[in-house]
Amino acid sequence: MGKQSAPSGFRDFLPEAFRKRAELMRRIREVYETFGFEGMETPCMENLDVFLGKGGGENEKLMYRVMKRGAALQRALEEHAELADMGLRFDLTVPLARYYASHRHELPAVFKRYQIGPVWRAERAQHGRFREFIQCDVDVLGSSSMMVEAEVIGATATALAKLGFAGLTVHINARPLLLLLVKGAGVADAMAGDALISLDKLEKIGPDEVRKEMEARGIAAAAVTQLLDFQRGMKPLDSRARLDATAERVAAEGAMHIAQMREIFELIPSLPSGELVFDPFLARGLDYYTGPIFEVAAEGVPFSLAGGGRFDGLIGKLSGQDVPACGFSIGFERVYTLMDERGMFDAATRAAEVLVALPDPKQAKAALRLGALLRAAGLRAEVQPEAMKLVRQYELAEKKGIPFVVLPDPAAAEKGEAVVRALAQRSNTNVPESDLAKWIRAALKAT
Amino acid sequence: MGKQSAPSGFRDFLPEAFRKRAELMRRIREVYETFGFEGMETPCMENLDVFLGKGGGENEKLMYRVMKRGAALQRALEEHAELADMGLRFDLTVPLARYYASHRHELPAVFKRYQIGPVWRAERAQHGRFREFIQCDVDVLGSSSMMVEAEVIGATATALAKLGFAGLTVHINARPLLLLLVKGAGVADAMAGDALISLDKLEKIGPDEVRKEMEARGIAAAAVTQLLDFQRGMKPLDSRARLDATAERVAAEGAMHIAQMREIFELIPSLPSGELVFDPFLARGLDYYTGPIFEVAAEGVPFSLAGGGRFDGLIGKLSGQDVPACGFSIGFERVYTLMDERGMFDAATRAAEVLVALPDPKQAKAALRLGALLRAAGLRAEVQPEAMKLVRQYELAEKKGIPFVVLPDPAAAEKGEAVVRALAQRSNTNVPESDLAKWIRAALKAT
Repeated sequence: MGKQSAPSGFRDFLPEAFRKRAELMRRIREVYETFGFEGMETPCMENLDVFLGKGGGENEKLMYRVMKRGAALQRALEEHAELADMGLRFDLTVPLARYYASHRHELPAVFKRYQIGPVWRAERAQHGRFREFIQCDVDVLGSSSMMVEAEVIGATATALAKLGFAGLTVHINARPLLLLLVKGAGVADAMAGDALISLDKLEKIGPDEVRKEMEARGIAAAAVTQLLDFQRGMKPLDSRARLDATAERVAAEGAMHIAQMREIFELIPSLPSGELVFDPFLARGLDYYTGPIFEVAAEGVPFSLAGGGRFDGLIGKLSGQDVPACGFSIGFERVYTLMDERGMFDAATRAAEVLVALPDPKQAKAALRLGALLRAAGLRAEVQPEAMKLVRQYELAEKKGIPFVVLPDPAAAEKGEAVVRALAQRSNTNVPESDLAKWIRAALKAT
Repeated sequence: MGKQSAPSGFRDFLPEAFRKRAELMRRIREVYETFGFEGMETPCMENLDVFLGKGGGENEKLMYRVMKRGAALQRALEEHAELADMGLRFDLTVPLARYYASHRHELPAVFKRYQIGPVWRAERAQHGRFREFIQCDVDVLGSSSMMVEAEVIGATATALAKLGFAGLTVHINARPLLLLLVKGAGVADAMAGDALISLDKLEKIGPDEVRKEMEARGIAAAAVTQLLDFQRGMKPLDSRARLDATAERVAAEGAMHIAQMREIFELIPSLPSGELVFDPFLARGLDYYTGPIFEVAAEGVPFSLAGGGRFDGLIGKLSGQDVPACGFSIGFERVYTLMDERGMFDAATRAAEVLVALPDPKQAKAALRLGALLRAAGLRAEVQPEAMKLVRQYELAEKKGIPFVVLPDPAAAEKGEAVVRALAQRSNTNVPESDLAKWIRAALKAT
């Protein structure tokens, strides 16, 4: 195993294995959920005292320990750099480069991949910023075609539409174009990077603040004025007119990037959840982008929902093999928080659909049988294992958002029936067992 | 935050948040897959040199470092125990106890949960043993009812049935019963644990080897003979007869456990993928089980597919709050390997269903449009971004297991048609665009 392999004892999963493993998980999860088991998650790491001396037995000795961060880590590393030999991934891109270098010959020449998984960063803990969070990336490796841009933009916009977002704006630009505009306005090469950092804040802090900041950085007032005037002039224009105006400014040096922008507009006649807009002042934070860059804005949301671009140099820099690449990343945690705040999750995220109550321990077998019957018909049915007053079992169901309770009533059972309690209506209905699942399914649809 | 909380900056996800996050992932993944993006996975950790000095920028400084294991770790810990303050989870049970202690008041009195996720152990790397692997657990916390046993057995057996396993045997026992049998045979209390360890190997190494081993451990030959005779006598009996015979031996001391076994049989009249069998010599490795224990065996497979039991003491020991608990864990990695070897994954794990070819760069827009059309109809359609000879594109599709190629043919397009290539048949068919998805769907069913 070369240094490009996964660490010893760790595995990369190629697409075929990934699909099989995902399918295996999906089927198991589906069955667990029909039994009313609830999914939950804990962090991948815990404070040491949670693990030590708690009966983990042999496994405790096999635990991986994570080193302290910050000043303590710095001191530790100065003295004992040799104590750590692995690190937890802080993004999904660096491991992708290692993966691609390791498996290039097993992968298609153009590798389209997605990955959704946790990454870890020892950030200062603060509101909305977590040390373990989900990243959600699509990337295409191995093609310089603008069809790739069209596809990652299409996939991201379609995904956001599927989540319920409408009226989105996908801003696109090519980072080299902005650089040419900045230099063309008379900003010295050495200051161009600084200018970009300031211009990136236009949306957030407005042109007056950007002007102050740029002048404070020592950029000539005339250059700042020219850039901000150009930017203001862009605002009312549509993308085609913006492209024409920008093309004029960047001339031959920017022609290829202008042509790529035009090609993307040609390839994407429409988006499912909003529109594509050329914005020559879109900068994106990271400087590893070499071509088109994108960002998705939602009305009334002060942050972008997704961002990406072409990074033809990065994979090569990481893996030693030059490979064109382009990706788009959905800000999973931001999108989740926004959807939660806006109530954008629907009944699909309901827990069990039915609780089979247990009025009396003698009904245990009947309750389990009814649960199995409902599950066989595809409903998610939880069976109450502890007998207690029915009113308390109704409360339990309501607390969990379960709309129906089935009662294993001996008198009804004799007639081949079960009693269904609709909690919202506080009504009981006798339903033949053979129609039970159908009846509940219809009632679920009506709610 | 008390010591029972997740570490600062890390999060527990309660069932409702979990469901929403899972739904969010599911929808994004689904869209990505219709675009032909492939899922893949890398380990959560990499060798340090993969991460360092590779353009991770600020993030590189925020990386969590994992300490060396084994002798190096031992030395390091003796001198610098203070360098590590967190550990990576080595199972899903210890974190569950911490989670339950932290969120008890937000959770239902009887908490039925499932969790499927990675755990890490610094095992010696060897064939089939990994340092990062998936655990797959259901657990019920907060109820002593045998309905819980019935439910975790039912859910596990149903899941295995759903995966395609048939003819399984779910062995059950109560660990205290085996202990009573051992002591009843005259094994001294101090030797009982040793005896269990040997008896646990009965299936693997046979009675002769077990006898040798027990005698070598200093257990009286008479006791060994009595135990092995009893075990041999059990073999031809059905579960009811085995229970009767065992009940006689363990008398009043084991009565409760016998009653619980009988209750489980009463509550589970049948299993979807095999049968329930009482096996008084089933021991299970872990000694934290306090009541019923279970294991799933498959014909011709030398390891169990799933294992579990009641562990009423453990959550209390870990969390400081006494809580009855019972769980069943599917050996995800073993089951995956077995299913893969046996070819038990079907078409559900196929990659894209259609490749839209690109015979000529001029067809880019037409190809993207056809891709969008197929995806809108729910098919997984990958669009080829690099123009090349068709025969090479057919090869690419075949390599990926994609059965159909759609050609954006200008002549056909004029008539509102597209050309579909069925790779297996090497045949081309002109199909009206409006029927394209329907046609391919029908052809997919026929394959």
